Amino acid sequence: MSDRTRAAAVLAECQLLATMTEEPGRTTRRFLTPPVAQVHAYLRRRMEELGMAVSIDAVGNLRGCLQSDASMQKRLVIGSHIDTVPDAGAFDGVLGVVLALHLAAEARASSLPLAIEVVAFSEEEGVRFGVPFLGSRAMAGRFDPALLALTDAEGISVGQAIANFGLNSGLNLALNSGPGIGAIEEAIVGEDAIGFFEIHIEQGPVLEAEGLSVAVVTAIVGQTRCKFSFQGRANHAGTTPMHLRQDAMTTAAEWILAVEALANKTDGLVATVGRIVAQPNAGNVIAANVRVSLDLRHARDFVREEAIDTLTRQAEAIAARRGVRCEARRLLEQVAVPMDEEMTALLAESVAAAGFAERHMTSGAGHDAMVMATRLPTAMLFLRSPGGVSHHPDETVLEADVEAALKIGGLFLRRLCARSDWKR
Amino acid sequence: MSDRTRAAAVLAECQLLATMTEEPGRTTRRFLTPPVAQVHAYLRRRMEELGMAVSIDAVGNLRGCLQSDASMQKRLVIGSHIDTVPDAGAFDGVLGVVLALHLAAEARASSLPLAIEVVAFSEEEGVRFGVPFLGSRAMAGRFDPALLALTDAEGISVGQAIANFGLNSGLNLALNSGPGIGAIEEAIVGEDAIGFFEIHIEQGPVLEAEGLSVAVVTAIVGQTRCKFSFQGRANHAGTTPMHLRQDAMTTAAEWILAVEALANKTDGLVATVGRIVAQPNAGNVIAANVRVSLDLRHARDFVREEAIDTLTRQAEAIAARRGVRCEARRLLEQVAVPMDEEMTALLAESVAAAGFAERHMTSGAGHDAMVMATRLPTAMLFLRSPGGVSHHPDETVLEADVEAALKIGGLFLRRLCARSDWKR
Repeated sequence: MSDRTRAAAVLAECQLLATMTEEPGRTTRRFLTPPVAQVHAYLRRRMEELGMAVSIDAVGNLRGCLQSDASMQKRLVIGSHIDTVPDAGAFDGVLGVVLALHLAAEARASSLPLAIEVVAFSEEEGVRFGVPFLGSRAMAGRFDPALLALTDAEGISVGQAIANFGLNSGLNLALNSGPGIGAIEEAIVGEDAIGFFEIHIEQGPVLEAEGLSVAVVTAIVGQTRCKFSFQGRANHAGTTPMHLRQDAMTTAAEWILAVEALANKTDGLVATVGRIVAQPNAGNVIAANVRVSLDLRHARDFVREEAIDTLTRQAEAIAARRGVRCEARRLLEQVAVPMDEEMTALLAESVAAAGFAERHMTSGAGHDAMVMATRLPTAMLFLRSPGGVSHHPDETVLEADVEAALKIGGLFLRRLCARSDWKR
Repeated sequence: MSDRTRAAAVLAECQLLATMTEEPGRTTRRFLTPPVAQVHAYLRRRMEELGMAVSIDAVGNLRGCLQSDASMQKRLVIGSHIDTVPDAGAFDGVLGVVLALHLAAEARASSLPLAIEVVAFSEEEGVRFGVPFLGSRAMAGRFDPALLALTDAEGISVGQAIANFGLNSGLNLALNSGPGIGAIEEAIVGEDAIGFFEIHIEQGPVLEAEGLSVAVVTAIVGQTRCKFSFQGRANHAGTTPMHLRQDAMTTAAEWILAVEALANKTDGLVATVGRIVAQPNAGNVIAANVRVSLDLRHARDFVREEAIDTLTRQAEAIAARRGVRCEARRLLEQVAVPMDEEMTALLAESVAAAGFAERHMTSGAGHDAMVMATRLPTAMLFLRSPGGVSHHPDETVLEADVEAALKIGGLFLRRLCARSDWKR
């Protein structure tokens, strides 16, 4: 099969999987909901056709192991996730799983001396239980048993959802009890694994803006999420002269521009105020209170920490000058996760060898690769997202870029095999 | 009675009237609700004690006419409103009615050659039916019969509310029909009226900031209310670099500061963005759409019109520079209403004669005086609002300022009587 034909087949498989959904007419497939079983059935058949040993681990990750004929039994894990956001596109996550199958097929056809485990992570988006990466957490040995108690909108717990899906493989649903956790621990990736490789759509506009097909991910950015609250004084919009106001709205506006200005002048920093809630929120009343979100991301933790300090000081200074009180609260801190340097170098070489520009970039979004990188040397390849669109039915991927990914992936596997001295 | 004793009595009467409410424990008295009948009963007794002929007109205005002994039967109308916002203070409106009674008593005691009509307007706040000034509209001959069809939250129409209150005085509840409107037309102030005088709390912080008791109102400002909508593009807060964003939030923020800057540099202009609604309003998504209100007020219509043009142009320019679309919609235009020059001059003289600083100011809020001024020469006196607080149970007024108002009001009536050549 030519790369072109394979690319078309990859796209067709993603489109087929998108029809397996909780909601007819749109793709919504949350953690361990019924359509996940359909996806499993399809992927299991594909894996078995490739001669893989297939299993589903305790958190619902579907895993297919392809042994190599070679005596060297080092294993590369390749995959991504099969859950989606509500009303999703066909490629976020799923594309990485389907590409993994095609790369495994190529490895088999070429008798590469490398065992390959394809994984379809059960959960990455965090939609059903509000916490993301349930699948990769388990595989990386980072699944906190307390997560089993999380409940979804219907009050069903993670543990119960697992049991309902038919995966009650000795999992003790009474929380925090010793033995039941065993099954989750069995999900941890084996000692013979030498690394993890994920291919994913960029979900951003950068590659398209630069006219490029792919990028090698160097790190998943660190992230701070905060809430800032500006407390002014409600007053009559008609009877309160400008100089006697304590306006929480103009205070927030000035700070939102300060956030933007700092991000504009700090290389690689993205900073977003996406949420704003004003009180009383009436056209003829000066705002008493305005609460805004701040989402701040950078690949270097010290840059991010310096930025959040600067913006907190600026918020306080702007508020003080306007007779407004300011309160800041951090909701989330996530350190940056670098990809493995050596594996990433091999991937970059493969990009160049395939004839593509060697673009490196950081990922502004979290991915399974971020979690897997805490256990295994990890590399990640981004494919251009036309229009930067994802988490939306209009999400697409170009056939030529899928072709590129297949070519690069094949070269990457060969280069990995040529190395004999993996660090693990 | 000394002015001081009278001032204490005025405050006590306002406090007593505040107990007549729809909601025990807080003062809420909307148009023609049951506590209005209590207020009417109290005020009727007070009016009758003063020798007034008392009536309630077709829209529920309570009116007491004190004839003068003099042959000159020119009449001055004095009053304010007795409806309140929910959880109101004791002085907004009611203070002006009670002060009118005390001024009438003084006129009678001094046998001033001036008939006085004290009016307690039934509706000014616009709370029950969403449209303000129902009482003064009727008295000024500006009551559009279509208003009778307005319905409150329970689906009761203005016409039905009037009937329910026992005021179905020939009012034809079938709308727009000729004869029924007669009763409302009978509410129009008589031809012998020479003017209208209203005393009201400032409801703003200016007098307090300047350490003054009272101000003479020169005009009720004109007002424009608009809605601006900024339409950008929702995108991932992590994966979208700063230079590829079309952020409706930062666009709105920049414009909110432009609004503030223009008002700061334009004498007498107040401009407020009090309401903001963002979509999707999520911390990790760049805002696709931000809608904001604009409330713009100035005593000179051309200044206000120039300001709204400037701000519309600025919104468009800021949005265009940021790749965001902007739409503006005007919701309300209200021209400025000047008070009568001659009457206001007499009032200012009275302020000075009483020993107070002659502070002139515009009213940033609408008042019954604004509506009455379209039919009668009108003057208005503001009393300091401690803390600028109104529409709140903490609303207060200083006894010394009430004393000042009584003194000034008495001098004003005398000066009016001294004039023989009123223009009507």
